[in-house]
Amino acid sequence: MSLIVQKYGGSSVADAESIKRVARRVVETKRQGNQVVVVVSAMGDTTDDLLDLAADITDHPQDREMDILLSSGERMSMALLAMAINQLGETAQSFTGSQAGMITDAIHGKARLIEVNPNRVHESLDSGHIGIVAGFQGMSRESKDITTMGRGGSDTTAVALAAAMNADVCEIYTDVDGVFTADPRVVSRARKIDVASSEDMLEMAANGSKVLHLRSVEYARRFGVKLHVRSSFSEKEGTWVIPDPEDKITIQEGEPLEQPIITGLAHATEARMTIAGIPDEPGRAAAIFNVVAEVGTNIDMIVQDVSDETKKTNISFTLPSDDGRKTLEALEAQKGAIGFEDLDFTPEVGKVSLVGGGMRHHPGVSAKFFSALRDAGINITLISTSEIRVSVITKIEDMERAVEALHTAFGLDSEEEATVYAGTGR
Amino acid sequence: MSLIVQKYGGSSVADAESIKRVARRVVETKRQGNQVVVVVSAMGDTTDDLLDLAADITDHPQDREMDILLSSGERMSMALLAMAINQLGETAQSFTGSQAGMITDAIHGKARLIEVNPNRVHESLDSGHIGIVAGFQGMSRESKDITTMGRGGSDTTAVALAAAMNADVCEIYTDVDGVFTADPRVVSRARKIDVASSEDMLEMAANGSKVLHLRSVEYARRFGVKLHVRSSFSEKEGTWVIPDPEDKITIQEGEPLEQPIITGLAHATEARMTIAGIPDEPGRAAAIFNVVAEVGTNIDMIVQDVSDETKKTNISFTLPSDDGRKTLEALEAQKGAIGFEDLDFTPEVGKVSLVGGGMRHHPGVSAKFFSALRDAGINITLISTSEIRVSVITKIEDMERAVEALHTAFGLDSEEEATVYAGTGR
Repeated sequence: MSLIVQKYGGSSVADAESIKRVARRVVETKRQGNQVVVVVSAMGDTTDDLLDLAADITDHPQDREMDILLSSGERMSMALLAMAINQLGETAQSFTGSQAGMITDAIHGKARLIEVNPNRVHESLDSGHIGIVAGFQGMSRESKDITTMGRGGSDTTAVALAAAMNADVCEIYTDVDGVFTADPRVVSRARKIDVASSEDMLEMAANGSKVLHLRSVEYARRFGVKLHVRSSFSEKEGTWVIPDPEDKITIQEGEPLEQPIITGLAHATEARMTIAGIPDEPGRAAAIFNVVAEVGTNIDMIVQDVSDETKKTNISFTLPSDDGRKTLEALEAQKGAIGFEDLDFTPEVGKVSLVGGGMRHHPGVSAKFFSALRDAGINITLISTSEIRVSVITKIEDMERAVEALHTAFGLDSEEEATVYAGTGR
Repeated sequence: MSLIVQKYGGSSVADAESIKRVARRVVETKRQGNQVVVVVSAMGDTTDDLLDLAADITDHPQDREMDILLSSGERMSMALLAMAINQLGETAQSFTGSQAGMITDAIHGKARLIEVNPNRVHESLDSGHIGIVAGFQGMSRESKDITTMGRGGSDTTAVALAAAMNADVCEIYTDVDGVFTADPRVVSRARKIDVASSEDMLEMAANGSKVLHLRSVEYARRFGVKLHVRSSFSEKEGTWVIPDPEDKITIQEGEPLEQPIITGLAHATEARMTIAGIPDEPGRAAAIFNVVAEVGTNIDMIVQDVSDETKKTNISFTLPSDDGRKTLEALEAQKGAIGFEDLDFTPEVGKVSLVGGGMRHHPGVSAKFFSALRDAGINITLISTSEIRVSVITKIEDMERAVEALHTAFGLDSEEEATVYAGTGR
């Protein structure tokens, strides 16, 4: 008997009809002979509505209270889903994050899991029930207060439970067919990826792919959880994300799915800062990065070059667009102390990344990559690579064209246009 | 320093503006030098909306799941109220029923309190915070599941907390000025009652008065809690309900409030069943009441009379209108076994009750009562009295006229018309 964890996001449980649809799917999974645990998000836009309500009341909500407020969303959907499942003749029991043993640190709003003790859920399954767990929430070990886990929290709940319960698979249900070789709204010939390693999916998520949250992919990778990202609106196979590349996924009869050399393309919008004319002396770069760190900005790509004649260096780096203004102001304030000549800030640039574990063993990927961009007449300003990823920064207006060109160059285009749902892929 | 418990119902916290208004009131109470605990209901119609959502999903919701669903309403309002209070510069901490130590039995949907351990709330107050507690909910000692407490649950939470914490007063905020000598929508000259004993208020609530729930008045009486029922829309003194009649309530300077001989009038709609021609033998009455009890019907007033010539007896009793049909069918089914001749069922009759502890020591109340009804040309079919109450059954079309006539006869009419709010008095 398999143990399957299924996670359904907000759009999958947006109203009574959707909840009943999910219930039918869950019951069918159980009747195929599996033990089933379901993790649910709040219905539809509930979380946003609660945030709006709080904003009507105060600009500075206490984080303890915000977590109590937000966690009520998942409690509502889990109870309604349990009722719908019971209506279909199976028995279901719902558990809050705390009751399901999701123990976190005390950081309200973005709590991290410390420990997962799903004993009550196990007992429920062993008694023949379907277990339902409220996603996105846990309990602080320290204060016994309810905590919420921030963006991707429900996915993380599902993966963490799957890890702790040794589930055979963690199915992430969303409103798209799976993870695509590129964003199908940008590349109409993008293909659904059949199977990819956790490692590759981590790079995709870290560099702009929005279907799976980075944190849950990290967790799945670390704890060896197999993910299956699929559509809640169809029975089609989705994208398998497997932690051990030696593992094979076989669907029905036939050959196991092959992992391709290249998994796909991710893209994201960032800001770029160039600091020009820095005296080429020890400590100057460190001083710059200290200033940036102090305002809480995360730096992504960094490039430094030195001019031999002038003995001055330029440093360029990329950062989240939202952090642009405060970083610019902080650096301008330190201009005299650090001694640079110029600050050049571009609020929006494109970052395009090609990802694939197969790159390790296939030389020539970089050559094909840069040739394709040159042939498309696209300028590159920064380059960053890892063993399994090549990323470049382009002008924002060139970003989507770059993704398309690379998608074609690497043979990722499908025969037909991808079906794009209205969903955001969450 | 006084400890004050305040309870705000759904209409008092219906939206962001209302919540902010309540917050201002709570903060003002604290700044007058009191420790304050606030019990809140769910916002506006939330509980009804959740019930509707559940009804869209299933006809037979599991009660465990229903309690999880319903309890999320109070959690939302308590968190939002805490935020609003914090915004005004005071600190507030919210507690679920479980966190506030409201321990109940395992009967979902209408759980009864077994124990109240408000240690965490005490600690919060001692640290200078305002404590906020979700009304209507607790935790089952047996299963550790969330339970909800049924009708009047939030009032009961407030009174139980006030008892356990030795509060100086429990203020019940509602959308009317207090409890009136009669329903002001029926008697335009009804007056707000200044002070009444718990015992009198118990009779009022048990016999149709809707402002205070019977259960919370019972609790207040048993545990010696002073209640103050007042409007959340004004600063006016409301109705004081005090457990010990020897206690005096003094408002500002001046004479203590006198408890009147007569507290007021309550009225309610019921059904009446008359079983005629019952053989006058031992056991027949018991058989009838067993049949009624088996279908779960509560009997209110009973009258039995015996005919000397025919040796047959008639029994009449009143019961909740909603239970009429099933009771009628059950009795009809037993007609042969019990041996009565006729069943006469009236789906709606009026029950009018005059309440006042002072009746004990003032003979003549009954005389005045029945004279007033006779003078108004109102027929009475059943009579029931206790030490502090006289109740009669009238035709449904005479009920309101009876209330008005008695109100005038007992000198309860005020000089001016009562201000009737749109609220239901909850």
